[in-house]
Amino acid sequence: MNIELINTGSELLLGRVLNTHAQWLCRQLADLGHTVARQVTVDDSGPAIEAAVHEALGRADLIITTGGLGPTSDDRTRDLIAALLGRPLRMDTAALDHVVQFFASRQRPVPESTKVQSLVPEGAEVLMNAHGTAPGLIIETAPGQFRAGKNCLVMLPGPPRELRPMFTNQVVPVLEKRFPLETAFVCRTLKTTGLGESRLEEIIVGPLQHLTVAGLELGYCARTGEVDLRFVARGGGAAELVAGAERIVRGLVPENIYGVDDDQLEAVIVQLLAEKKQTLALAESCTGGQIANRLTNVPGASAVLWGGLVTYSNEAKVKLLGMPAATLAQHGAVSEETARAMAEGARKVSGADHALAVTGIAGPSGGSEAKPVGTVFIARATPDQTVVLRCYNRYDRETFKHVTSQQALELLRRGLLDNEKPAS
Amino acid sequence: MNIELINTGSELLLGRVLNTHAQWLCRQLADLGHTVARQVTVDDSGPAIEAAVHEALGRADLIITTGGLGPTSDDRTRDLIAALLGRPLRMDTAALDHVVQFFASRQRPVPESTKVQSLVPEGAEVLMNAHGTAPGLIIETAPGQFRAGKNCLVMLPGPPRELRPMFTNQVVPVLEKRFPLETAFVCRTLKTTGLGESRLEEIIVGPLQHLTVAGLELGYCARTGEVDLRFVARGGGAAELVAGAERIVRGLVPENIYGVDDDQLEAVIVQLLAEKKQTLALAESCTGGQIANRLTNVPGASAVLWGGLVTYSNEAKVKLLGMPAATLAQHGAVSEETARAMAEGARKVSGADHALAVTGIAGPSGGSEAKPVGTVFIARATPDQTVVLRCYNRYDRETFKHVTSQQALELLRRGLLDNEKPAS
Repeated sequence: MNIELINTGSELLLGRVLNTHAQWLCRQLADLGHTVARQVTVDDSGPAIEAAVHEALGRADLIITTGGLGPTSDDRTRDLIAALLGRPLRMDTAALDHVVQFFASRQRPVPESTKVQSLVPEGAEVLMNAHGTAPGLIIETAPGQFRAGKNCLVMLPGPPRELRPMFTNQVVPVLEKRFPLETAFVCRTLKTTGLGESRLEEIIVGPLQHLTVAGLELGYCARTGEVDLRFVARGGGAAELVAGAERIVRGLVPENIYGVDDDQLEAVIVQLLAEKKQTLALAESCTGGQIANRLTNVPGASAVLWGGLVTYSNEAKVKLLGMPAATLAQHGAVSEETARAMAEGARKVSGADHALAVTGIAGPSGGSEAKPVGTVFIARATPDQTVVLRCYNRYDRETFKHVTSQQALELLRRGLLDNEKPAS
Repeated sequence: MNIELINTGSELLLGRVLNTHAQWLCRQLADLGHTVARQVTVDDSGPAIEAAVHEALGRADLIITTGGLGPTSDDRTRDLIAALLGRPLRMDTAALDHVVQFFASRQRPVPESTKVQSLVPEGAEVLMNAHGTAPGLIIETAPGQFRAGKNCLVMLPGPPRELRPMFTNQVVPVLEKRFPLETAFVCRTLKTTGLGESRLEEIIVGPLQHLTVAGLELGYCARTGEVDLRFVARGGGAAELVAGAERIVRGLVPENIYGVDDDQLEAVIVQLLAEKKQTLALAESCTGGQIANRLTNVPGASAVLWGGLVTYSNEAKVKLLGMPAATLAQHGAVSEETARAMAEGARKVSGADHALAVTGIAGPSGGSEAKPVGTVFIARATPDQTVVLRCYNRYDRETFKHVTSQQALELLRRGLLDNEKPAS
């Protein structure tokens, strides 16, 4: 199946807005077993949209457009596609009712301009918008009108909080019916951390060879501090291939896999702590609050996160963590000893079950020969022991912070797993 | 001038990676006075790249490609374009030297596979890669080969930290020489916060009308918690039009403008504090460290940020900030009184000149009728006074945190400005 995605919007081509629709829709389709062949962005002008849609009509089975369904003068997609397909617009009373109710429920008058959104091309399927006033549209062309086969056009509104639920709840069921996969499709992603992409590949590629020969596809996606490993298989036995691959990889790198599919490391940690009914305190220097920020993005973090100390200055380290000024003076703020004292201090102040501490040199300045920019010490303290990890993260400042927070969270996750092992 | 941007990479069409290149490059070009007409993403396969480049050659003056210049088997852009243009590849000794030195400086052997990156199409201008091994390339076609005019092809490596400096330092000067603007072009962005897009427009559109009639273009870009206001003018008098518009808007909303062009609120604050040689302490509850994280993204933050306390639990508020347990019990963790006590406590603990405190209900749960999810209290304390702001930020959890941290930073910025006024 040939799929084209057309994003409309001058703000995209002026670089004012990041195109998150493209990634999100491509990802949804990939997980359903469909790959987008081409993604195009054009501005809001008539000729640009017309040219892009016309080209796609000659090639694609499925065309998805985003944006241009609103009520203002730069919302032209609906009118242009209606004209291109030779389908006159007619007022859809259900869509109009929806607009009227939308404003009524907010106790606001219906602006005259929004009524234009209820005009839909003849023969279009109307997708009611649960979070806005512009309905989505699905139109099918006749075979031979633009290419030998039919085209299916799906037109989605631009705002993400309108587009996403509409796609998931209303478009996916239609796609599953109109474009049933010819064979079974199974997709599974293992989220790994602590191994580079090429090292991971080296470890698993041999043991998986009999499965890749049998049709298993492997995909790697390296992001800062982690690698997604994606298994895809099609046809009879697809589920077994993917399950077999997962079993083998879990056997080879059991500790590097922190989750599956859309799991995030911070959410995995909040869940592990919640299950154990344990608490965490943080002492961050070079990550500057990023670890706390990531953990508090997870709903329910308040049950496990006692709090955090961003001890950016030496004085804060001494005052808040009760660190001996001598340790700082003797070993320096970026040292194994300081990381250890920070973690132990945070645990004592908080009484939490676990404390995590980070100190390092984010740069761009502040390095020395013995401790160059990028040097980091990460410590994890429990009532029983304190472990310290030294890393060297030579990146720009923001990447440095992200990689370091990832390593710290991973050190904690490993500790939480070790914890689970019965004493031997 | 017709510009097309072609992003290559299967990971983009599988939705594994967000296309940040498209926004970044479009933005850079827009600020130089050039608008991208079309952006296309295709996968790494030969036919897809070939088709996209071939189409663009028939239409575009300037074609920019990203990705596919690396050493592995899915890096095909260089070879395909060389073949398409009929330019045989030859080994470029300067590029090869660069690769050898790149590995030597990292004390690693040169992998044989990376040498392929030194093969460049005949007649190409080679752009040395300051942050990697794949050189960028600029190639000009002869008029009539693909269209009446010439084409200029710019091929950039995929990793952002290689692409961005290469574009800024090496491509921009070439573009300025090869594609001089026919008329003057002036672009200026005012960064505003504290006003919605439509409210801002309402205030300024009338007073600017005589300038828009004379050719000034206005652009608004609303992002979470802020609005960028962009002025563009062309031709004779462009600089005067833009300067006049800026003067008028600064007169109308003087306190809402926190910076220009690429300024970020957190960097403005670090600079204001540094200029005054003043320090800041933070006490964050519902923002969970995000304010500290944003400030510590700014190089030089360590000179002004004493530290931060992420007092997520009530116990942490009492222990770290010395808050009276009675205040918490009587007014609740989310209250004007608690915000005030947090800010004053953070200032006392730290001895910093300013303290900023935030407490609120991020959701999804935890709200009540009197204090629904989204309720926030923000306090700023100085030795002289404490001010508390109540906001209602009804968003998803992550947006809530971002909007709240923005409001808190803005409250601080206003305080730093007031500070500057001589006592009257």
